Amino acid sequence: MQSFEALSKEFTQKFSSRHFPEQPASLYDPNEYFLSLGGKRVRPILCLMGNELFDEIVPDAWHVATAIELFHNFTLIHDDIMDKAPLRRNMPTVHEKYGESTALLAGDVMLVVAYDHLNKVKSEHQRKIVSLFNKTAKEVCEGQQLDMDFEKQEVVHLDEYIRMIELKTSVLLAASLQLGAILGGASRGNQDDLYAFGRELGIAFQVQDDYLDAFGDPAKFGKQVGGDIMSNKKTFLVIKALESCTPVQIKELKRLMQENPADKVDRVLQIFRDGGVDKWAFDLKEKYITSAFQHLDNITIISGRKDPLIQLAHFLVQREY
Amino acid sequence: MQSFEALSKEFTQKFSSRHFPEQPASLYDPNEYFLSLGGKRVRPILCLMGNELFDEIVPDAWHVATAIELFHNFTLIHDDIMDKAPLRRNMPTVHEKYGESTALLAGDVMLVVAYDHLNKVKSEHQRKIVSLFNKTAKEVCEGQQLDMDFEKQEVVHLDEYIRMIELKTSVLLAASLQLGAILGGASRGNQDDLYAFGRELGIAFQVQDDYLDAFGDPAKFGKQVGGDIMSNKKTFLVIKALESCTPVQIKELKRLMQENPADKVDRVLQIFRDGGVDKWAFDLKEKYITSAFQHLDNITIISGRKDPLIQLAHFLVQREY
Repeated sequence: MQSFEALSKEFTQKFSSRHFPEQPASLYDPNEYFLSLGGKRVRPILCLMGNELFDEIVPDAWHVATAIELFHNFTLIHDDIMDKAPLRRNMPTVHEKYGESTALLAGDVMLVVAYDHLNKVKSEHQRKIVSLFNKTAKEVCEGQQLDMDFEKQEVVHLDEYIRMIELKTSVLLAASLQLGAILGGASRGNQDDLYAFGRELGIAFQVQDDYLDAFGDPAKFGKQVGGDIMSNKKTFLVIKALESCTPVQIKELKRLMQENPADKVDRVLQIFRDGGVDKWAFDLKEKYITSAFQHLDNITIISGRKDPLIQLAHFLVQREY
Repeated sequence: MQSFEALSKEFTQKFSSRHFPEQPASLYDPNEYFLSLGGKRVRPILCLMGNELFDEIVPDAWHVATAIELFHNFTLIHDDIMDKAPLRRNMPTVHEKYGESTALLAGDVMLVVAYDHLNKVKSEHQRKIVSLFNKTAKEVCEGQQLDMDFEKQEVVHLDEYIRMIELKTSVLLAASLQLGAILGGASRGNQDDLYAFGRELGIAFQVQDDYLDAFGDPAKFGKQVGGDIMSNKKTFLVIKALESCTPVQIKELKRLMQENPADKVDRVLQIFRDGGVDKWAFDLKEKYITSAFQHLDNITIISGRKDPLIQLAHFLVQREY
């Protein structure tokens, strides 16, 4: 059983080799550039850990892990175009550096190369692997579309929002674990529990992300606190506040979102606190973490093998702020 | 042996059923809309014909043909974004009707669904099928990138241009035939000749397209004659003219491209004629057609089975204007 750190080091080293041909450089340099920006590589490591939960890590798991990380980077390149984001990991995004058309094509070809790696899988479960990968890929696209739809919609219900987060963020974490588990010969029941563990953890992670943007310690959070509030992003906090605050608080919140006064962040935070939205978000995150660990408990494997996943879960969703 | 028309009718009918889930409609309606615009469905039919050249059409060929047509439509949706094209088949393009972000995502998910169909292939050759499909998909992306690069480049050599056309247009026609042939159990040599037939035919088709845009009969051509000249598009004709006309003619051509006078089309056509570029393009097309048919001849199968492909070739590259 290897720790998250050990697997992360090994994957990052293998993944750092060149992934694309040299020519045409105008297409492939942007991809190599984007991959060189790094990242935590959480998803491929989840795949390796899902595999190692049931078996020694098989060579196929490295192919699938690579496909997952390329897929994830493809979605980031395209999401950055859609969000008109100038920066990713403090560096220019692909469309910012090379133009939108090239970023679009670079993403496309990265997705195709992800499928090249899936095509190397020798396991008898290859068809099942591709099927789950495709289902997940479609869901991630659906989640991104719903996210864009919701930004234009005046009212978004909490259950719709959770479903969107599940699609946009959670299913890829969940599927990464399950893909590894399939290669490890896990039973259907164990696969389902591992998937559910990843899904619930993913939602907890997003709740935490929204919470920290509003209430995090700027020194620890690493991003500007209040960024979501400034940009009127629909977050767990805003959606809950619009659903459960008093009519006066809701009216004030909507006015602040429209008028963007200088003290907007402080006043929105006050509404969140007055309406108990901070406490609610904290509890919601705990609820999803508890549910995630319940599913992990259900997996019928000696509990010592689960340690790296527990460690990773705590790394992703810190229980302190 | 079925004719192009018979296969076209059968494929079009099968392909006209719904390809995407109902929800989220904001993502999938754009895809259904785009597919409803129709098209000649040449590529999937090439796959079916490539299969029937060596065998009865196997069920797998329908899956691969469907994947090919979805892939082709994915490239069209994304190309239209890059080209900022308002219309496709006289109807609004996806990005024009639904916005660029949705068009981007709709294309992405269409590519994923193409892979769903490839994942249904039961043939022992499935891995080889996916491998050729992926190689071709990457080449099509490379071709599109080179096309965009060339539009910004002052000098483009004819051999570079031909390679770009090969990647952007020909390889998918060629691969469609070969994918069918693989499923039909064709030998490696026969596969290679069939691929070369498709590749040479594709280049001939593009030379014809460029030729007809300049010298075609407006009544028969169905597009505005001179459109490429008006938009300064780099075509076989322009590239050849810049390579082989006299310095005076080249200077005049460059001036016309820069200044866009009212009689630009007529004057550029005159340069093409004076420089013998029209005759050269006609001969170039004939050269590629001859080469294509040579490769078809090489295929070791009774010649009667080749009739539908000969018929299709004549449909694609008319020998009269």
